[in-house]
Amino acid sequence: MNLKEQLKKVQNYFSPKIISEVNNQYVKIAKIKGQEVPWHNHENEDELFYIIEGELLMEIENETNRILKTGDLFVVPKGVNHRVSSIKECSIMLIETKSTKHTGNVKSAITKSIQDQSY
Amino acid sequence: MNLKEQLKKVQNYFSPKIISEVNNQYVKIAKIKGQEVPWHNHENEDELFYIIEGELLMEIENETNRILKTGDLFVVPKGVNHRVSSIKECSIMLIETKSTKHTGNVKSAITKSIQDQSY
Repeated sequence: MNLKEQLKKVQNYFSPKIISEVNNQYVKIAKIKGQEVPWHNHENEDELFYIIEGELLMEIENETNRILKTGDLFVVPKGVNHRVSSIKECSIMLIETKSTKHTGNVKSAITKSIQDQSY
Repeated sequence: MNLKEQLKKVQNYFSPKIISEVNNQYVKIAKIKGQEVPWHNHENEDELFYIIEGELLMEIENETNRILKTGDLFVVPKGVNHRVSSIKECSIMLIETKSTKHTGNVKSAITKSIQDQSY
């Protein structure tokens, strides 16, 4: 499968879709535009971000902000508070343990269940 | 980190380098040119291939050959015999459980230890 082809199926921002799995990890794609992701962390799970296209502002608590660009890869370690946003549309791939909740234990307007993340 | 920047550090073909980790998985990059990878499988581990640049011939036992292109993602399920090759240089990202041996239990001229796969 081609990631950019898969992205055509993603209709909504902040709505990760599961496209594959590897071992006990889900591979997801998502489109981000705006600042709707709340600060959150995943207590026991790292989260990998890969920028397919665009720029993503990665905020990590107590660290200097990072701007991730096309082709960049960044892993948020487990337990670390983070928040992502983008002014223009940004397309990302995520790799997360199957048990990972995409907004951690924080419930927000964008929070989706695993069912909602399946096609 | 940027994947294409990281690739500049990879000197040799068929020599995966660990660039990150997520949960119990290594993220590796590699350059492939030629047909030196033997048929092998990973008994208990899936293996994710992402094509950063180029074309990769993915052979799966008893399946039609696939040509993976830039931006394509493919997961070889555990236990499935496979072999990859490329006529021209192809750059890939791999995601594998830390315990995965890159040529399975097959020892070949290209087989590298985990130490050899670290910078």
